[in-house]
Amino acid sequence: PPRSTLFPYTTLFRSSMSTTYFTRRTIRKYEPRDIDEGLLERLLKAGTRTSTTGNMQVYSIIVTRDAGMKKRLAPAHFNQPMVTEAPVLLTFCADFNRFSKWCRLREAEPGYDNFLSFMTAAIDALLAAQTVCNAAEEEGLGICYLGTVTYNADRIIEILQLPQRVVPVAAVTVGWPAQVPEQPDRLPLDAVVHYETYRDYAADLIDDLYRAKEAREDNRQFIAENGKKTLAQVFTDVRYKKTDNEYFSGKFLDVIRKQGFLSR
Amino acid sequence: PPRSTLFPYTTLFRSSMSTTYFTRRTIRKYEPRDIDEGLLERLLKAGTRTSTTGNMQVYSIIVTRDAGMKKRLAPAHFNQPMVTEAPVLLTFCADFNRFSKWCRLREAEPGYDNFLSFMTAAIDALLAAQTVCNAAEEEGLGICYLGTVTYNADRIIEILQLPQRVVPVAAVTVGWPAQVPEQPDRLPLDAVVHYETYRDYAADLIDDLYRAKEAREDNRQFIAENGKKTLAQVFTDVRYKKTDNEYFSGKFLDVIRKQGFLSR
Repeated sequence: PPRSTLFPYTTLFRSSMSTTYFTRRTIRKYEPRDIDEGLLERLLKAGTRTSTTGNMQVYSIIVTRDAGMKKRLAPAHFNQPMVTEAPVLLTFCADFNRFSKWCRLREAEPGYDNFLSFMTAAIDALLAAQTVCNAAEEEGLGICYLGTVTYNADRIIEILQLPQRVVPVAAVTVGWPAQVPEQPDRLPLDAVVHYETYRDYAADLIDDLYRAKEAREDNRQFIAENGKKTLAQVFTDVRYKKTDNEYFSGKFLDVIRKQGFLSR
Repeated sequence: PPRSTLFPYTTLFRSSMSTTYFTRRTIRKYEPRDIDEGLLERLLKAGTRTSTTGNMQVYSIIVTRDAGMKKRLAPAHFNQPMVTEAPVLLTFCADFNRFSKWCRLREAEPGYDNFLSFMTAAIDALLAAQTVCNAAEEEGLGICYLGTVTYNADRIIEILQLPQRVVPVAAVTVGWPAQVPEQPDRLPLDAVVHYETYRDYAADLIDDLYRAKEAREDNRQFIAENGKKTLAQVFTDVRYKKTDNEYFSGKFLDVIRKQGFLSR
């Protein structure tokens, strides 16, 4: 592929796309050994070089290595075993607390107690999280995002002692893989990419795009195990139910409000 | 550093952390040449391997290459020149439209018209966005996130023809760097990382953590240019003002509601 002709940039930065982007899978079982302190620090440092709105760096990363802390956090993550089994749990938080404190100490009045600022900080936190994950996987580590972080943010805030203007938005377990699970399917690239304008999905296009997924033996088994007729029903009736989504919506909005991001 | 002793994983995945994580800078000036179609596809494909909640892939990526479309989108991004100058603009959207359509066609009733589902989809979109950016930078490309995407989501929705249950959360320009700007400062790692529990910031800690940033010549110049007394005031009074944040908070919440993510 053509590369930049600009001399210093190509010299400094020429590299090539890591194959781990394509071969990765989520790792839920880890070897019992620890992650070297220096390696963890490099991963986090890579994370802090990620794009951030206006270079404000409005996020924080909480590192959990202590067995007691993992045990306390586990119920908030529905006792998924990787929380206590992984050597490291990282909780990425939207954080306008540090920035606001700095403002107040510098004769500046922070105006970040609103929803847009929550989004800005959440975006900062999520982009940094993904860089840490990509870097970790390049080093041979395995990672797993815990979707439970937005469900039980209130409990996590309590345990990690997060102050006002700090809300957890991603939690990731990191460790040395103890298994290589099969790589899960993905929809064809065409399903998620649109050119110039959004091409909405007619019924026959949906059929085409989901055909391979629905034909997979593991997904057929999944339907049978859950006693459902279609794979979609496993999602709507079992895994991501309307009643749960609505319950956790209210809970998460309360958290955002309580942490001071919905004052108007 | 120690690596996994698990045979197939190390064979398949052994790699080492890309240096671009540490040397990267945001690129706002691009060479006039295009990005090869195959390369762009590989970047997007890398993005689609990123972690996604329950393998639902609840996001979409809109690729803008057409000069007319860039020109139409430019005002929504406050006419920042990289929108029309970059060969490619990528808009990453939280998207529960495709998934919900699939559910309805499979005798399943989707329950995703709520705030939690918006967050789930936004997280999916942002993690995919950052993988695409990391992969692009490894290939020597430069990227720039446009914070304006959450300010003017309503206009972007109109221009890109995004249906209900689709909300843009990240916009990124991608191209071959035509300049190598100085790498901006970052706070020391200690400023954003906490161990076990959140260590709140006393005044003298804030002073320590922000000292190097405040001492930089470019930041001092920035204060002078803006006629302010402190760097923090440049943020609170000029760049990220309370009144603007509040205005755009209301606007973005309206967008989320209008797109069907706040039905309760």
